[in-house]
Amino acid sequence: MRVGILGSGLMGGKLGTLFARAGHEVVFSYARSEEKLKRLASAAQGKARAGTPAEAARDADALLLAVHWSRVGEVLKQAGDVSGKVIVTCSLPMNADNTELVVAHTSSGAEALAEMAPKARVVCAFNTIPSEVLFGVFEAKGKAAAPSLLYCGDDRTGKRVAAELIRDVGFDPVDAGPLRNARYTEPFAMLVAHLAYGGKKGPEVAYRFEWWGK
Amino acid sequence: MRVGILGSGLMGGKLGTLFARAGHEVVFSYARSEEKLKRLASAAQGKARAGTPAEAARDADALLLAVHWSRVGEVLKQAGDVSGKVIVTCSLPMNADNTELVVAHTSSGAEALAEMAPKARVVCAFNTIPSEVLFGVFEAKGKAAAPSLLYCGDDRTGKRVAAELIRDVGFDPVDAGPLRNARYTEPFAMLVAHLAYGGKKGPEVAYRFEWWGK
Repeated sequence: MRVGILGSGLMGGKLGTLFARAGHEVVFSYARSEEKLKRLASAAQGKARAGTPAEAARDADALLLAVHWSRVGEVLKQAGDVSGKVIVTCSLPMNADNTELVVAHTSSGAEALAEMAPKARVVCAFNTIPSEVLFGVFEAKGKAAAPSLLYCGDDRTGKRVAAELIRDVGFDPVDAGPLRNARYTEPFAMLVAHLAYGGKKGPEVAYRFEWWGK
Repeated sequence: MRVGILGSGLMGGKLGTLFARAGHEVVFSYARSEEKLKRLASAAQGKARAGTPAEAARDADALLLAVHWSRVGEVLKQAGDVSGKVIVTCSLPMNADNTELVVAHTSSGAEALAEMAPKARVVCAFNTIPSEVLFGVFEAKGKAAAPSLLYCGDDRTGKRVAAELIRDVGFDPVDAGPLRNARYTEPFAMLVAHLAYGGKKGPEVAYRFEWWGK
């Protein structure tokens, strides 16, 4: 697949790198500097290049939206027409201080995004794990049992694409239902962030759902 | 410990049974009928009896609050003075149809409860797993790795008691921080409910947090 990264920060930079290593063609866009994008692309050890959001979006089979919530409108504008595009968002609707969700309970960031990009196939994924755990899980692929990764959305194509990307980076995709359930996955992401950054065990945390016999 | 069960339905009935099996003295209260309470108490295979909420609260080291959200006010009133009592709540703030959280984002059911019982030591726990998984996990105690169970609260004594109860029923207590983080655990509970009751794998689902090397 061709995967466009909108927002090449901690999550976008790492996920783009792993998507490239998993064999996808990646365009990194929207970082603090052009140099950072080029550095990411050349370090990714795969088919990766730097580009603008519009270049990242062009011909992309999937777009990863990984910018701060305050920049979603701007990056979408720069990306241009996203009709029919699969957008996998891991952008939590946080305030400027990153202390609180600004959209929740009766809506979610993912639903708000779907309103901003009504013709795109929005999937909410990669928001419930810290970036720090990505490489450890990826490197253990096939050797250890894969941790879970929740995704939700209303579009079948989008969900299929998101599940494939989740599997590619070493996680087990867990279907959390319709996009409205981002109302639950986004607060859960806040909780995981608390465990990752507020505890003593370090930020490399993931989670696994398990079904038990009666 | 003496544990009073306020609300002996699916969660309260099963947890009270397991607390009794783990060696605690249990009083079951507040079910649809006096008969149900007596049946629970005699089936619990331990020190258990039926009582009123006031009897459940009297001399209790911990109270498990497991009623529907719409009944919290009433059961607290029946329980009487809960000053200094540890209240472990697994009551999600759901509407009458059990379809939506009625308190969230800028507050949580657990915080609202702490306002209703300002002198009690409120801990939010046992809300993030379905009752169906309890016996399977309990029976595997010591044989399989314990799944996680999130709890949060502002009172140290309360949290210590809750962690012990969590351990007693076979789970690994994971400290989710202050009571305000119930804003995140309660929506997560909704998500787990979706996986338990909305999927094909059945309701016996639990979760585990895992720390990965870099």
